Amino acid sequence: MTSRTQTTFAPPVMEARRWLEGVIFPADRPLLNVSQAAPVDPPPEPLRAAMAEALERPETHLYGPVLGLPGLRAGLARNWSDHYGGTVGPDQVAITAGCNQAFAAAIAAIAGEGDEVILPVPWYFNHKMWLDMSGLRAVPLKTGDDLVPTAEDAEALITPRTRAIALVSPNNPGGVEYPAETIAAFFELAKSRGIKLILDETYRDFDSRDGAPHDLITLGDWDDTLIALYSFSKAYRLTGHRTGAVLTSQPLLAEIEKFLDTVAICAPQLGQHAALWGLENLSQWLAGERAEILDRRAAILDNLPVIEAKGWRLMGCGAYFAYFEHPFAESSADLAPRLVRDAGVLLLPGTMFMPEDAPEGARQVRVAFANVDRAGIAELFRRLAAVEGPLAGRATPI
Amino acid sequence: MTSRTQTTFAPPVMEARRWLEGVIFPADRPLLNVSQAAPVDPPPEPLRAAMAEALERPETHLYGPVLGLPGLRAGLARNWSDHYGGTVGPDQVAITAGCNQAFAAAIAAIAGEGDEVILPVPWYFNHKMWLDMSGLRAVPLKTGDDLVPTAEDAEALITPRTRAIALVSPNNPGGVEYPAETIAAFFELAKSRGIKLILDETYRDFDSRDGAPHDLITLGDWDDTLIALYSFSKAYRLTGHRTGAVLTSQPLLAEIEKFLDTVAICAPQLGQHAALWGLENLSQWLAGERAEILDRRAAILDNLPVIEAKGWRLMGCGAYFAYFEHPFAESSADLAPRLVRDAGVLLLPGTMFMPEDAPEGARQVRVAFANVDRAGIAELFRRLAAVEGPLAGRATPI
Repeated sequence: MTSRTQTTFAPPVMEARRWLEGVIFPADRPLLNVSQAAPVDPPPEPLRAAMAEALERPETHLYGPVLGLPGLRAGLARNWSDHYGGTVGPDQVAITAGCNQAFAAAIAAIAGEGDEVILPVPWYFNHKMWLDMSGLRAVPLKTGDDLVPTAEDAEALITPRTRAIALVSPNNPGGVEYPAETIAAFFELAKSRGIKLILDETYRDFDSRDGAPHDLITLGDWDDTLIALYSFSKAYRLTGHRTGAVLTSQPLLAEIEKFLDTVAICAPQLGQHAALWGLENLSQWLAGERAEILDRRAAILDNLPVIEAKGWRLMGCGAYFAYFEHPFAESSADLAPRLVRDAGVLLLPGTMFMPEDAPEGARQVRVAFANVDRAGIAELFRRLAAVEGPLAGRATPI
Repeated sequence: MTSRTQTTFAPPVMEARRWLEGVIFPADRPLLNVSQAAPVDPPPEPLRAAMAEALERPETHLYGPVLGLPGLRAGLARNWSDHYGGTVGPDQVAITAGCNQAFAAAIAAIAGEGDEVILPVPWYFNHKMWLDMSGLRAVPLKTGDDLVPTAEDAEALITPRTRAIALVSPNNPGGVEYPAETIAAFFELAKSRGIKLILDETYRDFDSRDGAPHDLITLGDWDDTLIALYSFSKAYRLTGHRTGAVLTSQPLLAEIEKFLDTVAICAPQLGQHAALWGLENLSQWLAGERAEILDRRAAILDNLPVIEAKGWRLMGCGAYFAYFEHPFAESSADLAPRLVRDAGVLLLPGTMFMPEDAPEGARQVRVAFANVDRAGIAELFRRLAAVEGPLAGRATPI
C-alpha cells in the first residue's frame, strides 16, 4: 500500500540542508546560503511593539474565526481593491496559516482523486507535493526560454479531469514576472473552459513593475474563476508566524472553511494582528523593502558578465529569485552539493523544480538572492565563476 | 465532479454559532456557551511575559525546522517519558500547528485513497471530516452504554484496507477516560494486525486518574504501532497560537515531515517557545488547572439529580466534556437550536458526532463544561430541567 505522503518526495529545503552536514566553512569564506526564500531579519521595531501589545489582549491567545479575523479580512480586501483598482469584499477573503496552506485548501476545495492541475515548469515544489499527496496529477506546462508559459500551450493540456491552472507571479523558482496579457489570457482560458485560475502572488510586493500587475480584479465576476493566494510573510517578515490568505468567491470559501477548520482550526492569532498592523502602518516601510530587493535584482544583472564569461546563462530574475542555466556537464543534482563543498554556496538544483523525466532541470539552478546584499552578490558570482568542471558541449535547448 | 471538501460536512462549531444569530439573551439570562472545548482566559501572566520576551529574539519571527524546535521536541520527549514511565526520544516527537494538524499529518502518512480507519462512535467530527477529505472510509465502531469501545468489536471491523484505529482518551465528545486495559488491548490488536493505533491525548492533562493512563510507552517497540497526538492548547491556554505534537517512530515522522512542510512549513514559532516555557515552568500551575477542571466534573455529578429527575441520563463525564442522553422525542439536531432560544444554552447535538444513519445521535448531546464554574453548572442544569417538550417513550437502546 502507498500512503498519501509516500506518493511524493522529501522536502527539498530539508534535503539541501543536509548537504551542509560535516562541511567546514573557513572564516574567510563563510557559507553563502541562497537556498531559501525567507527574510532573515525580524520585523521592524514598531511592528514588534504592536505584537507585544497584542499579546496583552486576551483574544490574541484564543481561537479565532476559521476564515480569519474580520478586521484583517476587511483590511486585505481594501488593500487588494486599492492595489488592483477593483472591488474585493471582506467575504471574498480568508486568512490561512501561510500561503502553502492557502494553496492546499484551494486545491482540496476544487479537486478530487484523479483530477488534474496544470503547473508551468519549473514549478514550486510544494505545489507539486500537495498535488501528489492529494491524489491529483500535476500536468507540466513547458515554458519558453524566458520561463513564461502561454495560454495556448496550456489549452492543449486541458482534459475533462482538469480543474485548474496554477500560476506563480512573480515566479518561484524562475523569478520572472508574468506580463499582464499573459495572466489575462490564462484567465480567459480558464473561464471559457470552466476551470479555476489559481494565481499565487506571494511575491507581489516585490514586483519591479509599478501599479497593478494584472487587471483581473477589475472584472465583475473575477471570483468565479480566480483564486488568488497571498502571503504576509515576505512583506512584513512574519515567516515564523504563518499568515497567508486566499481570495475567491464566498461559496468557494465556504468549502475552504471545511479544510481550514479540520487542518488548522484557525490561523495563528498573533500573526493576524501583526499582518493587520502592517497593512495599516507599514506601506512606506514596505516600499523601502521593495526598493532594496529591486537594487539586489539590479546587482544580479550588474554582476552577470562575471559568470556569463564562464558559460552561465540567466533565464529569469525578479522578486526573490534568479534562475540560471549552468555550464557544466554534470547534473545540477550533483553540482549543488558540490557547490557547498567547493564554493561555500548553497543553492537549489533545477531538478527539484521539475518532473523527474524532464532533462532541463539538470542544467538549471535557483538562486534566492533576497537575503544577499550587493557585496554578497558580487562575492557569490566570483565564487561561481571560480568553480571548475567538465563543461556541457552546448546549452540544452529548453 | 466532487472535490475533496465536498465529500464532507460544514464545520459543526461554525454551524452552531449561526444558531445564535438574531437571538436576544436577556441580562438576567445570558448565553451559557458549552459548545466548544476551549479556554476563554489568556495564559497565566508569567507565560505571557515569557512570550513577550521571545518576541524580542529574531528567530521567533523566522521559519523554524519543519518538525519543530529541537528544544521543544526534547522537552516533550522528557515530559512524555516521565509521565508514562517509558522512553521517548526527541527524534520520536514532531511539533504541529495544533493537534488537528497532527491527526491530518498522521493519516496522510499511513493511508491512501480507499483505505479505512476505525473510529469509535460518537467520534470527534474533525477526525471524520479529515478522513472524508482524504478519500478514506471512517468505519464506525459502536461503543457500549459506557461509551467505551472494545478491541474485540474493533477486530471484527478490520479488513485488508484498514490502516489504523483512532482513539481519543479522555474522549471528545464522550468525556469517558478509557481504562488502561482497553488501550492495551487496542494496542495489541493493532500490533498483531500490522496497523497503527492513533491515540489522541489532547485532554491528557485533565485525566482524573493520577499517574500514567496507559503503559504503552513502556513497551520497547511502542513507536512501531503507536501514533500519539498531543495539544499544548488546553494545558497552557494557547489555542490561538496553534501548537500540538505527534509522537511516533522516526521513519514515520520523515513521512509526516512531507505533509507538514507542504501544508504548514513549520508550526508557529511563538507558540512553540510558549509551550516549552510551559513545560519547564508551569507543572504546578497546571496541577491547579486540573484540580479546577476536576472540581467542575464533580459539580456535574453533584447537580445531576436535577436533570435526571427530568429524564436526562449522563453517559460519560471527564476532562472537558459531559455527554448526555436527553429525554425528548425530537432529534438533538432540532433540540440544540431550540435550547439556544428556550434556555439560552448553546451545546452540540449528538448528530454532529455520528454517521448520518446512526439513530443514537438524535438522543444525545455534548456539554463542554470546562469554561463553566460550579455556579454556572448549577444554572445550566436548572435551565435544562426547565425545558419542556414531548418526551420520547423510552430511552433508545444504545
